[in-house]
Amino acid sequence: MSKIVIIGSGLAGSLLAIYLAKRGFNVEVYEARPDMRKVKISAGRSINLALSDRGILALNQVGLDNYILKEAIPMYGRMVHTLDGQNKFLPYSGRKGEYINSISRAGLNCALMDEAEKYGNVKIFFNSRCIGFDCHTGEAIIENLESAERKIVKGETLFAADGAGSVVRNAMLHGCVPRFNFSQSWLEHGYKELHIPPAEDGSFRMEKNALHIWARHSFMMIALPNPDGSFTCTLFLAHEGEKDSFESLKDENLLLSFFHKHFADAVPLMPTLVEDFFKNPTGNLGSIRCSPWYIDDKALLLGDAAHAIVPFYGQGMNCAFEDCRILNELIEEHGTDWKKIFKIFTEIRKPNTDAIADMAEENFYEMRDAVTDPVFQRKRELETKLEQTFPDYFSKYSMVTFREDLPYKVAKEKGNAQDKLLMEICSKIENTSEINLNEVMEKIRKLNLQSDNTYLENR
Amino acid sequence: MSKIVIIGSGLAGSLLAIYLAKRGFNVEVYEARPDMRKVKISAGRSINLALSDRGILALNQVGLDNYILKEAIPMYGRMVHTLDGQNKFLPYSGRKGEYINSISRAGLNCALMDEAEKYGNVKIFFNSRCIGFDCHTGEAIIENLESAERKIVKGETLFAADGAGSVVRNAMLHGCVPRFNFSQSWLEHGYKELHIPPAEDGSFRMEKNALHIWARHSFMMIALPNPDGSFTCTLFLAHEGEKDSFESLKDENLLLSFFHKHFADAVPLMPTLVEDFFKNPTGNLGSIRCSPWYIDDKALLLGDAAHAIVPFYGQGMNCAFEDCRILNELIEEHGTDWKKIFKIFTEIRKPNTDAIADMAEENFYEMRDAVTDPVFQRKRELETKLEQTFPDYFSKYSMVTFREDLPYKVAKEKGNAQDKLLMEICSKIENTSEINLNEVMEKIRKLNLQSDNTYLENR
Repeated sequence: MSKIVIIGSGLAGSLLAIYLAKRGFNVEVYEARPDMRKVKISAGRSINLALSDRGILALNQVGLDNYILKEAIPMYGRMVHTLDGQNKFLPYSGRKGEYINSISRAGLNCALMDEAEKYGNVKIFFNSRCIGFDCHTGEAIIENLESAERKIVKGETLFAADGAGSVVRNAMLHGCVPRFNFSQSWLEHGYKELHIPPAEDGSFRMEKNALHIWARHSFMMIALPNPDGSFTCTLFLAHEGEKDSFESLKDENLLLSFFHKHFADAVPLMPTLVEDFFKNPTGNLGSIRCSPWYIDDKALLLGDAAHAIVPFYGQGMNCAFEDCRILNELIEEHGTDWKKIFKIFTEIRKPNTDAIADMAEENFYEMRDAVTDPVFQRKRELETKLEQTFPDYFSKYSMVTFREDLPYKVAKEKGNAQDKLLMEICSKIENTSEINLNEVMEKIRKLNLQSDNTYLENR
Repeated sequence: MSKIVIIGSGLAGSLLAIYLAKRGFNVEVYEARPDMRKVKISAGRSINLALSDRGILALNQVGLDNYILKEAIPMYGRMVHTLDGQNKFLPYSGRKGEYINSISRAGLNCALMDEAEKYGNVKIFFNSRCIGFDCHTGEAIIENLESAERKIVKGETLFAADGAGSVVRNAMLHGCVPRFNFSQSWLEHGYKELHIPPAEDGSFRMEKNALHIWARHSFMMIALPNPDGSFTCTLFLAHEGEKDSFESLKDENLLLSFFHKHFADAVPLMPTLVEDFFKNPTGNLGSIRCSPWYIDDKALLLGDAAHAIVPFYGQGMNCAFEDCRILNELIEEHGTDWKKIFKIFTEIRKPNTDAIADMAEENFYEMRDAVTDPVFQRKRELETKLEQTFPDYFSKYSMVTFREDLPYKVAKEKGNAQDKLLMEICSKIENTSEINLNEVMEKIRKLNLQSDNTYLENR
């Protein structure tokens, strides 16, 4: 079989290598970082991630879902930490079996690379950074970061899974693809990872099976559980500004007074808060959109290289894994007619990745503001009741997270129409017990019939 | 006085040089192209342009408006050429004195460079391409295209007027400005310039004082008069597609049959059509948006480098000239506090350049489709009547084009509200004589009162 080149052995690149290896291709993967199974490195990204049904389906098709889920911690809902120290649990779904999973990014990546290398036809080259791509010949220039040697690699085609800063995409942007549409946009907020260690007996210091959230309007903190009993917290806060910003938290006193004021219940759980805060980098939060994603039959962008999104729907990895699954189905259908595959792939995926990008940005505002709004809380209660009562009711969150059969675009359209209706209903009442569930569900079914007219079958 | 560096001696760079020279700065302008006053070169851009009131005001403030307008040809309205060979004149305004001016890009650029060089403190370096910019030091690398020598230039600050492909902006995009927001988006349509020569006696072969337009739904052609009796035509057409596209017009026969079918009245006026079509390049039509426009006190982007737009409102140059005028006012107010000036400039201008970018894209669809729509034609008639009757009535087009005192954003908001109302009125009648003008004007005054609440004084 012919050779395929993949740039990047991150989550998307490694999973794609497995899919291609199973089809018998000779796969060469070039990764700029050292082998994280041998060298302890920071992946430069979040420590843990929320794996949900779209990602699980893609793992299932290479036989890895159960193996990966064994290492994961189920999170059944959001645990909302209010300013006065109360906790309120909001389940993600009213149905059993619909939950998300906290998983270690590094552990998952290592497992995928291990699996890929089980195939004799996959070779991963580490410390090998792609520094250029020639759209006309399909040749990539790879620099070995240890020896500084450069070589040219070329396969039958190339998949660029080299992340948000994709070098292949930059080659497309600067000259080799005419009329390349591109945008990068950044939130005013950045993020910083912090740490809640396990209790002395190794147990979790907060509810284990939840995504914890401290929503404070203009900023927020979340925490996801790790298998060792710890939590990884992420503080989302404005980069700049005189007040409530990374810029303004200049010293230990300012930091501690900020935390005591806004996250008082978390402070006793964070013994290394000051050290972590000033040691750990502040990350940026941005979205990248572009089109076309391909150059002729020479290369295809996928995952973050094609559509990096902000993390507020927990879908970045799940979306990249879905890319791999759908690409695999297209290869099943069209063989190695790469140009055709790339064109169809872009036509199918672009409207859906645009939709999840929009929803992820919107969810930042929902997580930050709306979970402290009583109308929104009543709406979540009503949704939970609807999910418990009607098997055919799915919230927007559920459609995105648990309905791997629904394209993101459909989830967005149906979800927005539903949300508008339910918020209207909940703004007019004081208590969800006043609501006639059957009447509401009839209205939702009518809405869904309307949007089914624009339904597109997911691939 | 201290030294200021300008990258680019195009329309914006040359006008800015004059403004700065008048303030006594020592100005060095670096231009990649040869001196167009000595070497005949294609500017690589449209041959003529529509100069209107925003541009005229900016020229007025350096004393050049009358000199430039002497060379211009007034265009009092659109001459619509229908498919059956009829012509219909739609005036731009119902008021005298409100018209646009066809002007030679090269002639205007040369006049601006001549004027700039009259000041002893301006020096323009030709064949000197900026190939890099260091955001931290403010140093630009300039390559002499004749000798291949490179030198480093640095002034008190730098203005990047280096156009849509700005090298300074690319430096900001790739690393030196954290969280630089950027987008480039392209229309599916491209453009090609064609030629209608003067009649044998030197006269114009069509109405001289009009912008001619052949609107054909999915494509269109326009023509602007030149002082020598010729017209420069621009064909806007899809790049790709089996039918009605640049791609599909492969040979002389296909080209001529396309033109005879769609632009029959123009064909006899275009003796060099075939030669021009296959010789002249096909241009792309895109918009560029970015933010921030500045790096500390080191550099400011302006004109197309900051906000390239599509040409369908005839505002690209006018908007760039307005940039220069407003920047000059800020220097008047804040001296050489560049960081402050750049910040205020961006805050003032960005919402307005975003607004004209939106309107320019929307006007493509209006010019292409709407001018053949009877409701739209009735609306234009109604607008002309309103303009003739009420001194306080301004169409959206008039507000953009003739109201240099109104920011683009206000023109857009007021214009959209008005357009919606007038289209509604005109969709319900057959003839504008049925309309009670006083009633309509009362409604518009109410609308304007509403939007005046959000009015921001233009700088």
